[in-house]
Amino acid sequence: MPDDMARPLVRGGGEGGASRHLEALMSEPGAPVIGILGTGDFSRSLARRLVASGYHVVVGSRTPKRSLARFPEDAELTSQMEAATQADLVFVAVFPEHHSTLLQLKPALAGKTLVDVSNGLQINRDGPSNAHQLADLFPESFVVKGFNTISAWNLQVGPRDGSRQVFLCSDNPIAKNSVTQLCRRMGFVPVDMGRLSSSLEIENLPFYLFPSWHLPVLCTLSLFIFFYLYNFLRDVLHPFVKGGKSAFYKMPIETVNVTLPSVALVMLALVYLPGLCAAFLQLRWCTKYNRFPSWLDRWLTRRKQFGLCSFLCAALHAVYSLCLPMRKSARYKLLNAAFKQVKAGVEDSWVDEDVWRMELYLSVGIMALGLLSLLAVTSLPSVANAVNWREFTFIQSSLGYCALFMATLHVLLFGWNRAFSPDQYRFLLPPTFVLVLILPLVALLGRLALFLPCVALRLRQIRRGWERRQHVHFTPRDGDCNGLEDVSDV
Amino acid sequence: MPDDMARPLVRGGGEGGASRHLEALMSEPGAPVIGILGTGDFSRSLARRLVASGYHVVVGSRTPKRSLARFPEDAELTSQMEAATQADLVFVAVFPEHHSTLLQLKPALAGKTLVDVSNGLQINRDGPSNAHQLADLFPESFVVKGFNTISAWNLQVGPRDGSRQVFLCSDNPIAKNSVTQLCRRMGFVPVDMGRLSSSLEIENLPFYLFPSWHLPVLCTLSLFIFFYLYNFLRDVLHPFVKGGKSAFYKMPIETVNVTLPSVALVMLALVYLPGLCAAFLQLRWCTKYNRFPSWLDRWLTRRKQFGLCSFLCAALHAVYSLCLPMRKSARYKLLNAAFKQVKAGVEDSWVDEDVWRMELYLSVGIMALGLLSLLAVTSLPSVANAVNWREFTFIQSSLGYCALFMATLHVLLFGWNRAFSPDQYRFLLPPTFVLVLILPLVALLGRLALFLPCVALRLRQIRRGWERRQHVHFTPRDGDCNGLEDVSDV
Amino acid sequence: MPDDMARPLVRGGGEGGASRHLEALMSEPGAPVIGILGTGDFSRSLARRLVASGYHVVVGSRTPKRSLARFPEDAELTSQMEAATQADLVFVAVFPEHHSTLLQLKPALAGKTLVDVSNGLQINRDGPSNAHQLADLFPESFVVKGFNTISAWNLQVGPRDGSRQVFLCSDNPIAKNSVTQLCRRMGFVPVDMGRLSSSLEIENLPFYLFPSWHLPVLCTLSLFIFFYLYNFLRDVLHPFVKGGKSAFYKMPIETVNVTLPSVALVMLALVYLPGLCAAFLQLRWCTKYNRFPSWLDRWLTRRKQFGLCSFLCAALHAVYSLCLPMRKSARYKLLNAAFKQVKAGVEDSWVDEDVWRMELYLSVGIMALGLLSLLAVTSLPSVANAVNWREFTFIQSSLGYCALFMATLHVLLFGWNRAFSPDQYRFLLPPTFVLVLILPLVALLGRLALFLPCVALRLRQIRRGWERRQHVHFTPRDGDCNGLEDVSDV
Repeated sequence: MPDDMARPLVRGGGEGGASRHLEALMSEPGAPVIGILGTGDFSRSLARRLVASGYHVVVGSRTPKRSLARFPEDAELTSQMEAATQADLVFVAVFPEHHSTLLQLKPALAGKTLVDVSNGLQINRDGPSNAHQLADLFPESFVVKGFNTISAWNLQVGPRDGSRQVFLCSDNPIAKNSVTQLCRRMGFVPVDMGRLSSSLEIENLPFYLFPSWHLPVLCTLSLFIFFYLYNFLRDVLHPFVKGGKSAFYKMPIETVNVTLPSVALVMLALVYLPGLCAAFLQLRWCTKYNRFPSWLDRWLTRRKQFGLCSFLCAALHAVYSLCLPMRKSARYKLLNAAFKQVKAGVEDSWVDEDVWRMELYLSVGIMALGLLSLLAVTSLPSVANAVNWREFTFIQSSLGYCALFMATLHVLLFGWNRAFSPDQYRFLLPPTFVLVLILPLVALLGRLALFLPCVALRLRQIRRGWERRQHVHFTPRDGDCNGLEDVSDV
Repeated sequence: MPDDMARPLVRGGGEGGASRHLEALMSEPGAPVIGILGTGDFSRSLARRLVASGYHVVVGSRTPKRSLARFPEDAELTSQMEAATQADLVFVAVFPEHHSTLLQLKPALAGKTLVDVSNGLQINRDGPSNAHQLADLFPESFVVKGFNTISAWNLQVGPRDGSRQVFLCSDNPIAKNSVTQLCRRMGFVPVDMGRLSSSLEIENLPFYLFPSWHLPVLCTLSLFIFFYLYNFLRDVLHPFVKGGKSAFYKMPIETVNVTLPSVALVMLALVYLPGLCAAFLQLRWCTKYNRFPSWLDRWLTRRKQFGLCSFLCAALHAVYSLCLPMRKSARYKLLNAAFKQVKAGVEDSWVDEDVWRMELYLSVGIMALGLLSLLAVTSLPSVANAVNWREFTFIQSSLGYCALFMATLHVLLFGWNRAFSPDQYRFLLPPTFVLVLILPLVALLGRLALFLPCVALRLRQIRRGWERRQHVHFTPRDGDCNGLEDVSDV
Repeated sequence: MPDDMARPLVRGGGEGGASRHLEALMSEPGAPVIGILGTGDFSRSLARRLVASGYHVVVGSRTPKRSLARFPEDAELTSQMEAATQADLVFVAVFPEHHSTLLQLKPALAGKTLVDVSNGLQINRDGPSNAHQLADLFPESFVVKGFNTISAWNLQVGPRDGSRQVFLCSDNPIAKNSVTQLCRRMGFVPVDMGRLSSSLEIENLPFYLFPSWHLPVLCTLSLFIFFYLYNFLRDVLHPFVKGGKSAFYKMPIETVNVTLPSVALVMLALVYLPGLCAAFLQLRWCTKYNRFPSWLDRWLTRRKQFGLCSFLCAALHAVYSLCLPMRKSARYKLLNAAFKQVKAGVEDSWVDEDVWRMELYLSVGIMALGLLSLLAVTSLPSVANAVNWREFTFIQSSLGYCALFMATLHVLLFGWNRAFSPDQYRFLLPPTFVLVLILPLVALLGRLALFLPCVALRLRQIRRGWERRQHVHFTPRDGDCNGLEDVSDV
C-alpha cells in the first residue's frame, strides 16, 4: 500500500460523486461518530466545534429534553447509553467525581477511545490522576487525556484567539493518534506528551502560575528589599540622624531610583554567571558528559526570566530618572541654588569634572538600555522563532555581554572616584555602587578568562566531545553535529 | 483497515523502490493533478507554489502560448478544456464576472472539486457570494471557497512571511478535506469555516479594516475631543477671558498632556465595567444561562482593544510629561521664578506639601504605567499563546485591577485637596480629575462589592451552573469542568 | 479508495481492539522502525524525541555497550549493520567527514530513506553539499536533507521553545513525504524546500547571521558616522576654532542626539523611496510585467528592516532628548542664565517665538514617535500574522506616510527660519536639518505626484495588468484577483 500522502486527494469525478455530495450535506460519510457524555458549557462548546469541523456528534444526557435548546441543531441529543453505543470515540465531559455514574455504560464503551477532558479542583501533586482513575474504571476502553487546558471559550471562538496547543497522552498510540487527528481537524495543535503517566502533569497544567518565574521574581524582590533598606539607611536615615535633616521625601522616588539599577545590574550578572559556572565545571571535569548539580541546571533554565526581570528594573530606572527634573523638589533646589549663586556673586558655576562624569554615564546608560531592549524584544516567542541558532547565540551571548559591560561601565562612571572618599562611607557602609559591582565584575572577568586561547581551545574540545580518559582511541567522534555546544553560553 | 497513522511511513526497501525513485523525479506518482483556470498573477504564483509542493499542475488558458513564458517550467500550459479534463481538483482563478465563460467546461468539471479563490471588488453585505454563484453554475461540482485571503506575494515567498491562515468552507466535507490537505502541504494553516454559507464572510474578510477596533477607537477619539475642549476652556480660555493672559502656548503640549491621562483612565475603567455588569446581571438573574444583551456582548469582546487604547494614551502621557521640563516655556518660567525669589530675598522656597504630593503621584503613576506595560505585552498574540488560562486570568484580571487602582490613586494624589478649593471651579466647571474619577471609582467599588463573602459565594455557585429554580433536584451538575466561569472577569 | 480523512478515525470496538491495546504498550504496531547511525548528543536527543512520539528506535553504534547508559531505555542500541538492516528510515547523525565509514552498510541501506542531519564547519558557498555527497555514496538510497537547523536542545525540550521549522528537501517525493509526516508527528513544522539541490542552502542556514539586516545596518552606521562628523565639525570644532570655547563635553550626548534624528529621518525616507521608484518605473514602462533592476528588488525586500532601524534611532533620540534637562551641564547653564537675568534686572525673559517653536516641534515629534511605535509593533511576526492584507497595507503605507510627514514636519518646525540666517552656515556648511530634509521631501512630493488623478488612474490600470501594446484585444484579463497590486506601495 503506498504512502497515504501519495494517493489522489480526491477521487476522480463520475458516478458516485453526486450522490456522495448529497449525503455529505449532513455530515461526512463514513466519518466517525463522536459521542459526548455530559451537558455543561464545555460539552456544548465542544459539540458546536465538532459539528463545525464536519463530525456527526451525539450528546449523551441524563435529561436530553431539558438540554436540547442549548445545543447546536446538528448535534443529536439522546440518552447516555444511546450515545455511548453509537459513538466511535467518546468525550467524557463529566465532573471526575461523577465518573462512577457512567459504569453502567461499560459494555457499550468497551474497545472505544475515551477522552478525559476533566480538571481537578486544585493542583494534585500525588495522583492518581483523573485519567488514571477513569482508565481503572474502564479497563477495556482506551483512555486519552487531553483538551483540559482548552477553555469552553476557546472552543467557541475557535482557535484563532488564545492558546492553540492541546496536550495529549495515552497508553494506546492508536487511540492517541485518532484524537491527534481530530484535534488537528478542529484547528488545534496537538502536543504529544507520551504515556498516560503524564496525565497528572497535564491535569496540573491549568493550575500552574508562572512556575518558571518564581525563582527570578523572588530574587528580584529580595534584592529590591535589601538594596532599598541599604539606600534608606545611607541616604535618608543618615542625614536625619547625623544632621537632623529630613530627607524622607526621597523615599518614593530617589531611593527607589537608586535601588532599581542595583537590582537590574545584579540580576543581569546572574544571567551570565551560571553559564560561566557550567564552563568552569566542564573544564575542571574535563568532560561534558557529567551532569550539572541540580541547582545549576535550574539556574541555567531560568536565565531568560532573570534577564527579563533585569530589563524591567532597568526600564523602570530609566523612567524614574527621566522624571527627576520634573519634580517640585528639583525645582525648589534649583531655585535655591540660583539664589545662593546670586548672593555669592559667582558668575559661572560650571564644574567640568561633574559635567563630564554625568554626560558619560548617561550616554553609556542609554546604550546599555538600548541593548537590553533588543535582548528583550528577541525573547518574544514570535521573534525568537524567526531567528536561527547562530543568530540567537549572537544576540543572547554577544549582545548580552555587551549590555552587561555597558551597564557595569555605567555604574563605574557613576561611581567615578567617590569610592575613595571617606564621606561616602556613612554609618561605615560602603556606597551602594561598590556592592553592586562585585557580581558583574566577576562575570566579566570570568568571561575574559574563557577568552584566553588555551582555555578557549580546551573548552571547545570538551564541547566537541573530547574527554581526558581516552582509553578508546580508535572511535571517531561521530554524530556530534549541532549538539549542545553553545547552550551553556547563551 | 487500520488507522492511517499506524501504517509504516515508508515501504521497506527492495525491488520497487528504485524505479519509483526515477519516476518521482518528475512529480509524485499517483499524486492528484491540480488544474488552474486563469493566467493572472495569482494563478502564476499558485502554480509555482503547487509545483514546489510536489504536485503535477495543469494551467488552463485561452491563449496558452502567450502565457507560457511567465509560468514555471514544470507546470503544463494547455487549453482550459484540456486542463479541466485532466485535473482532479481545479482552482478557479478567473474574475467572478467571467465565471460564466467557463460554462462550456461543465461536463469536464462534473464531480470534481472547484476551489473559488475570487474576491469581490468591494465589501459585499447581501450576497450571494461569488462561491455561491459558482456553485449554482456548476451544480455537479463541489465548490470550496478559500485562498482569497492569501496574496500572490504570500504564495510566492512562501508562508514564512505574513499570514499563514487559509479560511475554507464548503458544503462537501470530502472536497473540503482534500483542499485542507493540499493547503497544509503547501505550508499554510487551513481554518475550517463550515458550510458554503460562510463564503460571504470569507469573501468579505480581505475588506475588513480592523473591525474590532472601530468601537474602541471611536470611544478614545470622542473622549479625547471632549476632555480636550473641557481643558481648553478651563486652562486656556479662562485665564484669557478673566485675566487677559494669553496661555495659548499650552495648546500643543500641556492641554494634550492633561487630556491623555483622562482618556487613559476612563478607557481603563471601561475595560472592567462590562465584566462587572455581566456579574451583576448574573446575580440578578440567578443563572448564567441567560443571554447578555447584545451591547454588553459586544463590549465584553472588545475589552482587549479598550485596554490597548488606554495603554497607548497612558504611554503618550508619560512621554509628554517627561518632555515638560525640556521646553523653553519651562525654562523661562524657572528663570523668572529665580528672579522673583532673588528680588524677594527668599532663601528657601521649599514647600513640603507640594514636594510630597508630586513625589507620591509620580511614583504611583510610574507603577501604574509599569503594570499597564505588562498587560500590553501579554496581549501580544505570541505571548498570550504561551500562558495558560489561570496565568492569563491572573494577569488580565488581578494585575489589571491593580493597574486600575494605581492609576486611580495617581489621579487622587494629583488632585490632593484641590477638589475643595473654590478657585478650581473656573467657569463653574469642576476640575478635570473630578470628572475622570467617576467611572474608575464605580469599577473599583463594584469589584469590592463582588468580594463580599456572600456575593462572591453566590456568584461562584451561579458560574458553576447553579440556578434558583431547581425543580430537577436529582441531576448532578455534570460536565461543567473548565467552562466559561471566569470569562466575564477577564 | 476513499480519501483517508473520510475513513473512521477509530475502528469500532470489539474483538481486535483489546489485543492491539496490549501490543501497543511497547510502541505502535506496524509503525516504521527508525534507525539512527551515530551516538552523539544530537543522536541521543533525537532518539529520546522519537521514542516519545511513539516510534520504535534502533541506534547503530560502533561501541553499543559504551553508549548504552546515555540513551533512553526504550531505544534499542545495537551495531550499525544491525540498525541499518532493521530500520525503515535511517537518520545519519555522523560527522560528514566520516560518511565514507558507512559504505559497508550500502546493501542494507539500499531502497531506504536516509535523512542527512549534518552541518558543515563553516558556510559552504560552492558545494557539493554534505547531502549531495551522501547521495553520491548511496545512489540506491533516497537522501532527504533536514533537521540540521534543529539543535539537540530543541529536540530535548520539545518544540515548545525556539524555532519549530524543519526545512526539508529531497529528490524523492515519497521519501520526503515520509520525513514530513515524521516531522509533524514529532511536533515540528516541516517546510518543503523542493529538490536536493536546495540542500546547500539548507546546510548554510545555521551559518546565516541576519542576512537581511546587513544592508540596513550598514546604511544606518554610515549615515550615523557621516552625520556625527558633520555635527562635530559644526557644533564642537567650530566654536573651538573660532571662539576658543571648549564644547567637547557635547560629544557624548548632544552631538549624538542631533545625529540620531537625522539618521532616523533619512532611513525612514529610504523605506518609502523604493516603492516610489518602482511605481515610476512601472509608469514609464507602462507595464507591470518588466522585472525591476536587482538593486531595487533587494531594496524593496529590505524595507521592513530599514523601518525598524529608523525606529530604533528615533526611540534612542527620544530617550537622549528626555535626558537633556537632567544633566549637570543643563543645570549649570540654567543657574548662570538666572545669574545673568538677575544682574541685568530683566523681570520676564519670555520669548514667545521660541516657546511656540519648541512646543510645536516637540508635540509633532511625539506624534511621529507614536506612529512609528505602532508600525514597529505591527511588524512583530505574531501581530503581522493576525492582520489581513488590507489592514497591513493601511498600517504600513498610510500610517507610514503619516509618520514620515510628521517626522518631516518635526524637523521643519525645529529648523523654523534658521535656514535663512547666515550665522548658521558655520565653516560654510549648511545646518544639518537642511541636509536631512532632502530625501523625506523627495519621498513626500513623489507620493503626492502619485495622488494626481491622471497618474493614480494610470498606475491602477497598470497594476490591474494593463499594458500599452494591447495587440491581443479579445483576451479578458482573467485571474487577476488579489495579485501583487499593492506590494510596491507597502
